[in-house]
Parts: sequence; structure tokens; C-alpha cells
Amino acid sequence: MTSPAPEPVIIDPVDLAQALIRRPSVTPADEGAMDILQRQLEALGFGCRRMKFGEIENLYARRGTARPNLCFAGHTDVVPVGDDAAWTAGPFEAQIRDGVLYGRGAVDMKSAIAAFVSAVGNSPEHPGSISFLITGDEEGVAEDGTVKVVEALAAEGEIIDHCIVGEPTSAALLGDMVKIGRRGSINAWITVEGQQGHVAYPHRAANPIPVLVSILSRLQSRVLDEGYEGFQPSNLEVTTVDVGNTATNVIPATARARVNIRFNPAHRGRDLQAWIEGECAAAGEGFKARAEVMCKISGEAFLTKPGPFTEVIVAAVEEATGRSPELSTTGGTSDARFIRSLCPVVEFGLVGSTMHQVDERVPVQEIRDLTKAYEALIRRYFVAFA
Amino acid sequence: MTSPAPEPVIIDPVDLAQALIRRPSVTPADEGAMDILQRQLEALGFGCRRMKFGEIENLYARRGTARPNLCFAGHTDVVPVGDDAAWTAGPFEAQIRDGVLYGRGAVDMKSAIAAFVSAVGNSPEHPGSISFLITGDEEGVAEDGTVKVVEALAAEGEIIDHCIVGEPTSAALLGDMVKIGRRGSINAWITVEGQQGHVAYPHRAANPIPVLVSILSRLQSRVLDEGYEGFQPSNLEVTTVDVGNTATNVIPATARARVNIRFNPAHRGRDLQAWIEGECAAAGEGFKARAEVMCKISGEAFLTKPGPFTEVIVAAVEEATGRSPELSTTGGTSDARFIRSLCPVVEFGLVGSTMHQVDERVPVQEIRDLTKAYEALIRRYFVAFA
Repeated sequence: MTSPAPEPVIIDPVDLAQALIRRPSVTPADEGAMDILQRQLEALGFGCRRMKFGEIENLYARRGTARPNLCFAGHTDVVPVGDDAAWTAGPFEAQIRDGVLYGRGAVDMKSAIAAFVSAVGNSPEHPGSISFLITGDEEGVAEDGTVKVVEALAAEGEIIDHCIVGEPTSAALLGDMVKIGRRGSINAWITVEGQQGHVAYPHRAANPIPVLVSILSRLQSRVLDEGYEGFQPSNLEVTTVDVGNTATNVIPATARARVNIRFNPAHRGRDLQAWIEGECAAAGEGFKARAEVMCKISGEAFLTKPGPFTEVIVAAVEEATGRSPELSTTGGTSDARFIRSLCPVVEFGLVGSTMHQVDERVPVQEIRDLTKAYEALIRRYFVAFA
Repeated sequence: MTSPAPEPVIIDPVDLAQALIRRPSVTPADEGAMDILQRQLEALGFGCRRMKFGEIENLYARRGTARPNLCFAGHTDVVPVGDDAAWTAGPFEAQIRDGVLYGRGAVDMKSAIAAFVSAVGNSPEHPGSISFLITGDEEGVAEDGTVKVVEALAAEGEIIDHCIVGEPTSAALLGDMVKIGRRGSINAWITVEGQQGHVAYPHRAANPIPVLVSILSRLQSRVLDEGYEGFQPSNLEVTTVDVGNTATNVIPATARARVNIRFNPAHRGRDLQAWIEGECAAAGEGFKARAEVMCKISGEAFLTKPGPFTEVIVAAVEEATGRSPELSTTGGTSDARFIRSLCPVVEFGLVGSTMHQVDERVPVQEIRDLTKAYEALIRRYFVAFA
């Protein structure tokens, strides 16, 4: 005698999105958002582990023990509300007006979490495992969030086979864009120290500006690449140069600049750092002023090459929305940069146009359509990989 | 029967220097300093014309109508006292202590005016003419002083054949240095306007910094010259670069820089201005950001080539001090830059080491020696040129 098939646990994704939005979890605060999510996942049979780093709440939840392990990643923290008075409804009221849900996090990305939870509730039976990797530190400094959870999971041998990140990736209509990669980012702070003096007596001074101009000229003249498999070319921007000398007849002592590079997978952050450091060292030759540089790699570039996993996602999106998503690598960074060290990762979620703005909002129907897409994704994933 | 030779009018240069120092003529104030000078010159038979431009007192005085006309140029205004409490005697007391005269203007340059007046008093008989061109606006913006007097004199056809400027040119000992030229100076204010945006979307922004770096790189890479007949090489200094962008992920809208060039007679200010303007225009090609530049020529370079006039001055200095002066072109600008359009001009005066400082001071004997040098100069000048 076979056991009866388990019943789905009906979870309305809009109700859950509202409950999450009503927790004012402005990064790094949690305000109980993670508890709501955890209770819901426990009701669905997930084993939940809270992983707190510093003041940050993180959650890793898993249902099933077998492989493949399909993970949904996201964050419960939100950006500040901005001009509170400009909102047409309280940013944490989660008001629905004319079929549109208003609130901070409605798009980025509490509704997507709710949609995936609802999709899992509608998918009681599956081989392998489904897991959630949820952080409360994506919008902030992102130092005690996903990066540390990923390190901890890797250290204990936890295996995640594939990951879907629920960031708002759709451009104009739900399903028109999926992100399969992101550029990396590195910042460099350059300081050149010379010696102050009078412009009429330059031999008694050491102007730091020529050294800095020489460095910046070398840096900005390099063509980093012409693009990489669907990526825009890597790009360097000098974001500021500052001396602050008000006198026309004085050679200043110090000059500073800051540089940012957004780079595709043709580069690694450490190679770019070494290049910047080398140019700074070389530019000092023949000058009395000396350059120092401090680099910080915010994230490495990554690409999940089109293949079986992206095909599952594309098919699920097409099934639920009727749209064929573009596989894109545009935009800023996301936590996908940290997860890529564990497994292939793809991002798919709502239309991002109102994210981080006043009156952030999403049509209720779009949340329901996203839920259907995630359901199709779960079903197709285990057909393809189990 | 010949008329008896006129008697010299004895004027003690130290007494007159003290009287002038006791007038607190901090630029652009006059406080009666010019009146003291005018009364003294009238007593010596000079015809005096006050030439007031704006709020500035200027004086042109002449004795004689024939050529050659030897002019002494200088200024009665002084720089501010600085830290009043740090002076060991009141800056306008003109105290003499241990044979040293203390006071603002003791070196730069009331004592030199007094010395030349005294020298003229001791030289009652000469062919040609002696004149004084004295301004109250040398230490300030210098817009209503010598430059306007020179323009007015030129317009009415007044002829000055040679000019001696009484600035403190001696380096360590009275008579060790005479200045026969000065470098010119030009300032340029460069502003590049682009368009603000996010570093991840550079195609939607226009970073002004690459344009500015390109301009500064072109400007600083040019070797202006290798020097010019006793001048140091012309020199360009970028004195400041400022953007003031505090965000690491923002492309700024505006970048500014300032450039100063000190140039020798191998260049004219207008040519350098045209070069800077051309580089600014050229650097904008291919960029969306646009550069604008505003130039101000503070003074043209000039050189009074060694010849009969410098020989008279060198001989006078050697006669009075026993020192053979170096003919120099170093240092900042002076009003000689305006007078050069009228006639050859050479600068000779006291030791400048305490000028513009607290406790500006000069040994009384140095004033008397300078008076002797000026007397010798007057005598030798008319022997050579009358």
C-alpha cells in the first residue's frame, strides 16, 4: 500500500508579502521579519538554522536531505524609506490600492521571498532538497550576511547544487529578463604626498599633482577589454580628485583620487589591484612625490553560462508569463557574487523599476505570476536534475 | 658772471624713512604717506602730479624738462603687519634699536624711497630730468597703481628714458644682486562639466574627470623651454584639482583645476593662454563632457639686456658698496613688469630677507649706503646718457 500524496499547504503570497513588509527591517534591523519567515518554513517541514554574525540575522532552511539541493536566496532587509512624507501610503503599511501593493520591500525583495515560499507550499512532493538562504544584510555593508553564511556552509560541507536569487531582475514586464552574471567591482583610493611650496620656487617643493595626473592618465587610457560573453566591456571611472588648495601661488602637499572599476569575468579583482598598484609605483619614478594606494574588491565578476540550469529557468518563465527572458549580465552587484563560489546561480524576480524609491510598489497579479513561475521552476528543476 | 652752483638740500634718509613708516599705509590705505613724500619733493624743486585712480593715491613728480629722464619707481603701501603681538616694537613706531630700524616698510620699500630722495637732495645739479613714479597699490591688486599711471603717461607722450625700481633686490648683503628681469605669470581656471550618474551605468553619464586628466596630462608634459638668457626654464604647476565627490558609486558632474605658469621672455602671456585654451578644446573631442577655461595674465616676462644702463648701475653699486652685483631674473613679480613698456628698467634696493615678515628691519647703515649708491647712480647716469 502506498502512502497518500501529501496535501499542498496553501500560502497566499500576497498575505505573506504584506506580513513581511509590515516589519520595518531597514538594514541592518530585522524587527521580527526573519521570525515570520522561519515560522512559515517550519510549517512547510523545513529544518531552520539561524546564523547570526555580528548583529545580523541570517537563516538557512532546508527540506529534504538528498541531492540535488535547489536553493532560493534573498534578503529581508530593505533600504531606508527616503522622504517619508512623499509616500502616498505609509511605507510599512503594505496597503493594497487598485490592485497594487505599496511598501518598502514590495519589489526589493520581500514579495519574491513570499512568492517562493508560496510556490514551495504548492509543491509538497519533490525529490532532492529545497533550501532557503536568507540574509538581513544585503542592502548594508554586506559583511555579516550571505558572504559569511556561504563560508560557514562550505566549511561544514553543505552542498547546494543550484541557486536562484529572487532579486528584481525584470526590466519592464515580469519575465523579460533573467540575470546570469554580474560584473565585479573594485575601488582604489590613491594618495600622493609631495611637499608644499611657492609656485615661483618649484625646486624647493614637490608637487603631488603631476604624479596623480600621470597615474590617472595611465589608468584611464587602458582598454580593459571589448566585452566578455554577453557582458559589457569592463569600465574604469575616476570618481573624484581632490586637492583643496585655495591659493594660486602655492604648490600643494597632497593630492587624492578615487577610482572604481566594474569588470566582467575577463578579469579578477586581484589582478586589477596589482595593475593599479603597479601603475602607482611606476608613476612615482622620477618624481619627488610618492603615491600610495588602497584597494578594496567589493565583488568578483561571475557568469553562469547558458546550459541546463538556465534552460530550466527560461522554460519556467515562459510557461508562467509567456515571455522569453533575455539572459543579462547588466546592473550593479548582488549577493549572487558570494553564492557563485558554491554553485551555479541565476537571478530572477519582479520588475525593479520602483526599487529604492518612494512609493515602491508591485501589482498584486505580478506577485501571483511570479509564484507560478517559481512553481514551474521547482517542478522543471527536479525533472531535469533529480 | 655765472650764477653760483645751487646748494644741496640735506635730507637725512633715515629721518625720512621713519616719517614714512609712521604712516600706517597698509595697502590700499595711504594715511598721509604720499603727502609727506610730495612736500619733500616740492622742497627739492619737483613738479608734482597726484594721479588718483579709484581709491588709490599715485604720484608722478619731475625735476627738469630735458631728456634723458631718469625715473625712480616705488610704492608707499605696505603689506599687513601679520601677528601684531609678535613684533618686538610697534610696526609703525619706526624704532631704532642697536642701529637697526624696525617697522613695516623698512625694507619693502619706504627706506629705499627715502634713500633716493636723499640722493636727489645731494645732487642739486644735473642735466636732463629726474622723476619719481610712486604708487599706493603695489602690494594689493595692483590694478589702480603703476599700470594706470604708465598708461596715462604714455597717452600724453611723457617720455621716461630709463627707470630704476627700488624694490629690495639684495640677497644677503647690500649690492650683491640687481634684478634685470622678471618672469611673467599666468593663471588658468579650468572647469569641465559632464553629467552625473551611477558608475555601473557610465553610458548614461558623462564623467568630466577623464577630460580634465587629459588636459592636465597634455599641459604638464610640455617642456616650455630650457631657459632664456639668464632665466630659469619656464615652469607650469597644476596648483589644485577638485571634484568633491564623496560617493564611491557616483560619477560626478563637474571637475575643476587651476594651473599657474611662471614664464621667461621666450613666451608671451597671450600665446600661453591660446595654448591652454587650445588644449582644453582639443581634450573635449570624443568626450561628452566639455571644458571651459578662464585665463588671467598677471604679468609679462621682461628682460633688460645687459648694456650701458646696467653698466651704470653695476658701477654705482660697486663704487658705494665694493660689491659686484649679480644680474638676476629670479623671484616673483614687481611693478617693473608695467614700466618695461615705457623704457629699460632695472631693480635695485635693500636686502629683502625680512620683507613681509614680523619685525621687518634694516640696519641704518644700509640705508645710508643705499643712498650713496643711488647718488653714484645719478651722477654716472647723466655722464653716460646726457
